[in-house]
Amino acid sequence: MFSSLNRARSLLSLIRYYSSEVLPQLTKDRYPNIKRGNYAVLTQDHLQYFVDLLGRNRVLNDPSDCETYNIDFIKSVRGYSQCVLKPQTTEEVSKILSFCDEHRLAVCPQGGNTGLVGGSVPVFDEVILSTTLMNKIISIDDISGVLVCEAGCILEELEHALGEQGLMMPLDLGAKGSCRIGGNVSTNAGGLRLIRYGNLHGNVLGVEAVKANGQIIDCLSTLKKDNTGYHLKHLFIGSEGTLGVVTKVVIHCPQKPTSLSLAFFGLESFDNILSTFKRAKKELGEILSSCEMLDAQSLNVVKTHLKLKSPIDDYPYYMVIETSGSNEQHDEEKLNRFLEGVMGDGLVMDGTVTNEPGKMRSIWDLRERITEALMYDGYLYKYDISLPIKDFYSLIPKMIERLGSDATRISGYGHIGDGNIHLNISVPKFRQDVLKKIEPYVYELTSQLKGSVSAEHGVGFRKPPYIHYSKSQNSIDLMKDLKKMMDPNNILNPYKVLPF
Amino acid sequence: MFSSLNRARSLLSLIRYYSSEVLPQLTKDRYPNIKRGNYAVLTQDHLQYFVDLLGRNRVLNDPSDCETYNIDFIKSVRGYSQCVLKPQTTEEVSKILSFCDEHRLAVCPQGGNTGLVGGSVPVFDEVILSTTLMNKIISIDDISGVLVCEAGCILEELEHALGEQGLMMPLDLGAKGSCRIGGNVSTNAGGLRLIRYGNLHGNVLGVEAVKANGQIIDCLSTLKKDNTGYHLKHLFIGSEGTLGVVTKVVIHCPQKPTSLSLAFFGLESFDNILSTFKRAKKELGEILSSCEMLDAQSLNVVKTHLKLKSPIDDYPYYMVIETSGSNEQHDEEKLNRFLEGVMGDGLVMDGTVTNEPGKMRSIWDLRERITEALMYDGYLYKYDISLPIKDFYSLIPKMIERLGSDATRISGYGHIGDGNIHLNISVPKFRQDVLKKIEPYVYELTSQLKGSVSAEHGVGFRKPPYIHYSKSQNSIDLMKDLKKMMDPNNILNPYKVLPF
Repeated sequence: MFSSLNRARSLLSLIRYYSSEVLPQLTKDRYPNIKRGNYAVLTQDHLQYFVDLLGRNRVLNDPSDCETYNIDFIKSVRGYSQCVLKPQTTEEVSKILSFCDEHRLAVCPQGGNTGLVGGSVPVFDEVILSTTLMNKIISIDDISGVLVCEAGCILEELEHALGEQGLMMPLDLGAKGSCRIGGNVSTNAGGLRLIRYGNLHGNVLGVEAVKANGQIIDCLSTLKKDNTGYHLKHLFIGSEGTLGVVTKVVIHCPQKPTSLSLAFFGLESFDNILSTFKRAKKELGEILSSCEMLDAQSLNVVKTHLKLKSPIDDYPYYMVIETSGSNEQHDEEKLNRFLEGVMGDGLVMDGTVTNEPGKMRSIWDLRERITEALMYDGYLYKYDISLPIKDFYSLIPKMIERLGSDATRISGYGHIGDGNIHLNISVPKFRQDVLKKIEPYVYELTSQLKGSVSAEHGVGFRKPPYIHYSKSQNSIDLMKDLKKMMDPNNILNPYKVLPF
Repeated sequence: MFSSLNRARSLLSLIRYYSSEVLPQLTKDRYPNIKRGNYAVLTQDHLQYFVDLLGRNRVLNDPSDCETYNIDFIKSVRGYSQCVLKPQTTEEVSKILSFCDEHRLAVCPQGGNTGLVGGSVPVFDEVILSTTLMNKIISIDDISGVLVCEAGCILEELEHALGEQGLMMPLDLGAKGSCRIGGNVSTNAGGLRLIRYGNLHGNVLGVEAVKANGQIIDCLSTLKKDNTGYHLKHLFIGSEGTLGVVTKVVIHCPQKPTSLSLAFFGLESFDNILSTFKRAKKELGEILSSCEMLDAQSLNVVKTHLKLKSPIDDYPYYMVIETSGSNEQHDEEKLNRFLEGVMGDGLVMDGTVTNEPGKMRSIWDLRERITEALMYDGYLYKYDISLPIKDFYSLIPKMIERLGSDATRISGYGHIGDGNIHLNISVPKFRQDVLKKIEPYVYELTSQLKGSVSAEHGVGFRKPPYIHYSKSQNSIDLMKDLKKMMDPNNILNPYKVLPF
């Protein structure tokens, strides 16, 4: 969990360097089959309304000012919006949406713009509604552990503020230095702590959101239990800004642990990973806070390209297991006993355990810098897949067999404790024929195994054609009914989430 | 957490004894203002269709066979349905609903019928759809901790089956001997373990439900992470059978702890309860599994009416703190150190800690048998309220002041760790004038404090007129929109949840 601001920044600069020095192609040109909806085109009158509402400084319409808001984090898509709005209050968001709905202006809500599926930037010229200036912490209750804040608060800043009260955020992401909590909630972000603290549907106590027509839905409860009718907040968690714009959130924050340890294991087989995970759940129990796996290719790439050193010999598989608790001595005892057990029984061939911050950081680097290292291979086909745990690693040998020498490297790593694998296929340069060998094959396999074609990254602009691999037609129809009910003019984040 | 089958049964028999030996008044007569909707009346043709579909044995239409299905657990409401259907498969549920929707027959879905707000029995003559025969466990994955089962499984039976695999249910309720998991999910049941394992919105991985028109919505994912579109399952969690009938569920089940301890404390003030809770969160951290409070009146009533003995002297307030973990010695050390600290600092005046099953049961009895004991006072006005933790106890002195000698006893106890207090006002006999002094005053106070007028019991038939105290008009309107979208003919559990 050492994904720091600096790490995020260095990865960002590397991605920027590798992705392009020139601007990415406009989405409308790269995806010519997608037609602009029948929305109004921004006029001077529209702009004047926004300036009257927000003031000159909070309405950007100079193309160069708008540029970074039009391009996604990994420079894969690019819109051409001529208008970025920066409301500071829920009432302003309400007025903006009400106006846009009335005038049929499409809107793209944007938080930290760190999404990986093109969900947070316009596809065409949608008005960008940025939450960056809605960044106040409203309250932290250190007894109940309840945080109330505006949607534009940066995750890492929340983490710091909570830390001072002995609390922590229940989620942790690589992008925490720039992602914003409204975006996290809108995309149901997962991350490294999910195994311990659960998902946002469990941890978000309340949401305030604005519907497409400007109506404010106040579900800003700070209560852990509230069964007074439908649980409306879940409409906004994970619907990626297509059903409403999240303006405030209430999060239940766990106690910050005082003791932290990390183990790094080498294993001979995937079956041994499963057995070790099962033992970890049993023997580490309540102090298990992260359980990750890497295959040999994933470790090799950080050793090769980033010159990182592994603390143990080479094995086909590795695991990173983190514990955190309230008593250092107890945690150490549990972890040592667990290590003796799994090594004594031959599940783990080699391993190291540490609670020294520097050494823990070095181990986390081996896991967290894989994506960064893989980019040195050239172009990367990335997949974020959930699978039933017994099939967790099954896609990798199949992809190796299918692609043969077409791929430089095929690797798998991820959140074994949560059944979420990141499959990466690197090639020297993007090739359409390789893509066709991978897709839809990888989605078909995932579907056959009853997996999810998007574990935590969401659907955004890039995955709507594939959600039928994980969702039944009845479910997709119900999604469309919901969208129609919440946003009949389809102004909110169009071309996203729902199949076109 | 010793709410056993026997406890549930003894409480049930007591309630039955006290509530009435005669049948409760029909709901249509007790609430003459509520008019039967314009639904079809059951005909012989309808019955014949059901018999053809399910067979003679799974269609009850003899009035005496239907009686227990028409009356709620606490005998507070009573419908007069002449038809109980017992499907065994999702397809049968689908056909029943499709038929009822087409023929405008209202339907009341029913699980274990243990609800406390009249949600699970008909108000008039709705067809009862009982899930009691849909009680198969489909799979338990002991590695990922994933349970897949039908809606009619009894909570306690699931607990036993999971226990054999070293797992446990993430929820525990007094009614676990008879409540069914589909009902738990449909009502977003809370209970004693919520502080540790979170709520059902977090723990339910998947739901299969049937819409009013018979359409099956398969969100039966066994994955911990799945961000492929709207998170539809939450429509069915906590909507009390008004948006669809839950037929199968997938639950993420935690590891069963091997060590269990219990503390019982006496305290001088409510502020000291808050401080002790805060310390418990910090010092017991990951092993804290329950944190409950009782006031003096609550303890007195079990001592008086049930002759239970307290292990400590008399104080104005008491706490029950449970720990559970994977290492007995570690847990004991943490608990002892915590106890020394809070007693040394004068927060706790007296206390006892035990891990002997018999002694733990005796302590839990003091907390869990309060409702049972209170019923010996005569008639009970019960409220299930969530409040911000600092205001947790604030209603009790206000009610004492307001009611004076009208009440035999006014007591407060509940889940301090989750901000959920059970306020009980006992009187020798039901009196309308006392009720008028209590309501809507108690709801107005709750609303002013931004609390919830139904923490965990739900809305059902009895609370729709009061949800506006906890829900904004925009939210209520959105609920109505959802209902209209999901069930345009309003056949599913009518007269429930939504304000009439």
